[in-house]
Amino acid sequence: MSVTAAQGFRAAGIAAGIKQNGNPDLALVVNDGPRRAAAGVFTSNRVKAAPVLWSEQVLKSGQLTAVVLNSGGANACTGPKGFQDTHATAEKAAEVLGCGAGEVAVCSTGLIGVLLPMDKLLPGVGTAAAQLSAHGGEKAAIAIKTTDTVHKTSVVTGDGWTVGGMAKGAGMLAPGLATMLVVLTTDADLDSAVLDRALRAATRVTFDRVDSDGCMSTNDTVLLLASGASGITPEYDAFAEAVRAVCDDLGQQLIRDAEGASKDIRIEVINAASEEDAVEVGRSIARNNLLKCAIHGEDPNWGRVLSAIGTTSAAFEPDRLNVAINGVWVCKNGSVGEDREKVDMRYREVHIVADLAAGAETATLWTNDLTADYVHENSAYSS
Amino acid sequence: MSVTAAQGFRAAGIAAGIKQNGNPDLALVVNDGPRRAAAGVFTSNRVKAAPVLWSEQVLKSGQLTAVVLNSGGANACTGPKGFQDTHATAEKAAEVLGCGAGEVAVCSTGLIGVLLPMDKLLPGVGTAAAQLSAHGGEKAAIAIKTTDTVHKTSVVTGDGWTVGGMAKGAGMLAPGLATMLVVLTTDADLDSAVLDRALRAATRVTFDRVDSDGCMSTNDTVLLLASGASGITPEYDAFAEAVRAVCDDLGQQLIRDAEGASKDIRIEVINAASEEDAVEVGRSIARNNLLKCAIHGEDPNWGRVLSAIGTTSAAFEPDRLNVAINGVWVCKNGSVGEDREKVDMRYREVHIVADLAAGAETATLWTNDLTADYVHENSAYSS
Repeated sequence: MSVTAAQGFRAAGIAAGIKQNGNPDLALVVNDGPRRAAAGVFTSNRVKAAPVLWSEQVLKSGQLTAVVLNSGGANACTGPKGFQDTHATAEKAAEVLGCGAGEVAVCSTGLIGVLLPMDKLLPGVGTAAAQLSAHGGEKAAIAIKTTDTVHKTSVVTGDGWTVGGMAKGAGMLAPGLATMLVVLTTDADLDSAVLDRALRAATRVTFDRVDSDGCMSTNDTVLLLASGASGITPEYDAFAEAVRAVCDDLGQQLIRDAEGASKDIRIEVINAASEEDAVEVGRSIARNNLLKCAIHGEDPNWGRVLSAIGTTSAAFEPDRLNVAINGVWVCKNGSVGEDREKVDMRYREVHIVADLAAGAETATLWTNDLTADYVHENSAYSS
Repeated sequence: MSVTAAQGFRAAGIAAGIKQNGNPDLALVVNDGPRRAAAGVFTSNRVKAAPVLWSEQVLKSGQLTAVVLNSGGANACTGPKGFQDTHATAEKAAEVLGCGAGEVAVCSTGLIGVLLPMDKLLPGVGTAAAQLSAHGGEKAAIAIKTTDTVHKTSVVTGDGWTVGGMAKGAGMLAPGLATMLVVLTTDADLDSAVLDRALRAATRVTFDRVDSDGCMSTNDTVLLLASGASGITPEYDAFAEAVRAVCDDLGQQLIRDAEGASKDIRIEVINAASEEDAVEVGRSIARNNLLKCAIHGEDPNWGRVLSAIGTTSAAFEPDRLNVAINGVWVCKNGSVGEDREKVDMRYREVHIVADLAAGAETATLWTNDLTADYVHENSAYSS
């Protein structure tokens, strides 16, 4: 499953000793072809980690043979030495796989501002290469976890072809263009331009609408690799929908595993004048700490929804806004609506509908509640 | 002290029964003249409470005789009935004070989306009027508290004239133009145009740079009333500086009392290409939940500072950024700087310097840490 669900891919996940606790921390994904087309989207954070700078560069060819991923260190804000380390990682993978370093993408995740232990990482690349397997997808997904409590994989099968993938991410989860580390593979026979188009279309409505804590990472990377091993070239629409479905599934797995969260919150903005307005309003609601605390307390505090909407530039009239929480229209025409006591918030999923009454466009974003566990986890993370 | 430090003002604070716990909840501030000039700034949240809509309207005359303030309910998102209630409050004050309703500003704070108990509030206005006193400033400051643990007042004295004021606010504290409820008074003999200029100049660099939790209120109001009772017309610069100093002091009192906070964080952005850039970067840092958790854990996590800077549009090069925490330059040239173990974070005040190395402009913003206590307080607030 995972990145090895599609034909033509092998993967491995091992413990190279990067993490001091001995947990798996190094993954390798290899495309055995016949095609080696690839596309990628990266964080829009202007402070970019060394592996992001490297991978953006090598992706310009539209070709990738392998991806090396490590947890246990983000290799971000590590200066020229950090970039040299990423380069050396690609060189090492190229050496053991018999390809060029320019065909190897590198992804890192973990603490910012710390150099990676290259004396552990480089031998680990060799060890991982020796364990590559067409059944290695799950081990690879496990090896990229940081604060993730579960590994995340997804597969969609088309008519003779498959799209599969893995993701990691549990915090610093507010992608500008992509989120954390995601590797998708397919055996469809498609070139990199088609992959790029399908991947950008998918991430725009999936990972880009996941906003756990408003904090954009320096390392966000989503890669899509095609082996062509199925020998089938699907219709673009069917393929794009499969990529979107896998991204959507992985994005929701990220939210379900968000640090400290006890509620998954689906924010549906309806009747917006434009999709941009709907996304702006959804993001403002998703980032409102007070609302996220209220949801944690199972309090249908629609006033905090309205105060968040009010900070946006979207088209709306305050006295025409409506808000439903778990199906109860607690705010009608900008004022008190149905009895808030009717709202049942005992379950993990919470559904907020914000009706802007200003048009016909819609967007759905995902976030989670803000909890004391989030504070505890993130006040102790680097120590 | 407080709003009665300047000559020509009386105030009162009483328990009208708006709050179910019997705490003081109604304040009245009266300008006895001879002048009754006034200026105000209000929230830029587009969802505005009824008292904000009312007070913006009456302020257009540049004249105020009285301000009625209540805690125990924000009267926001309460529809036409909420606006009628604000109007009735002003009418009641006008009746007992013998002035016009159009000379009475109204401020409310508390839960959004709940109508005020007018059967308690209107008699309370009469009770408060009967207790008006030139020594009533402190009682007024106490009566406007909601989750505030302390009341906030400040006074600056000039050459024969005085500026004093009171503030409330402890959460939903990210003013777009002003913050929560603030009433400033002066006995300087100045017209409303001068008051307006001095007040806008002051709030721009004080309350506008206080960002506790990124959540903008629907009720933010700052009023400045001048009685002219000193008979002195100060130089503009001296007066404006006094207004700025009082606003700065009150703004810092708000941060020190922020909900659940254990650290006050001063964010100084230096060497920015423009003041706008400095403020944008400072606000991005101030709103980064992960950094705020790290500071709570006494972790000098400069990587989270860089990732916050990276989300802005300010002019900078990632490899020229420097960050100091409590005097230790933990990040130099976008990478690892001095030993982070040298950073002493045992004390309540934390000082972060972000050097953009892109110009000569500076801005200082204030925020606080994110704590489990904030989560607890705000997950239980309305219940």
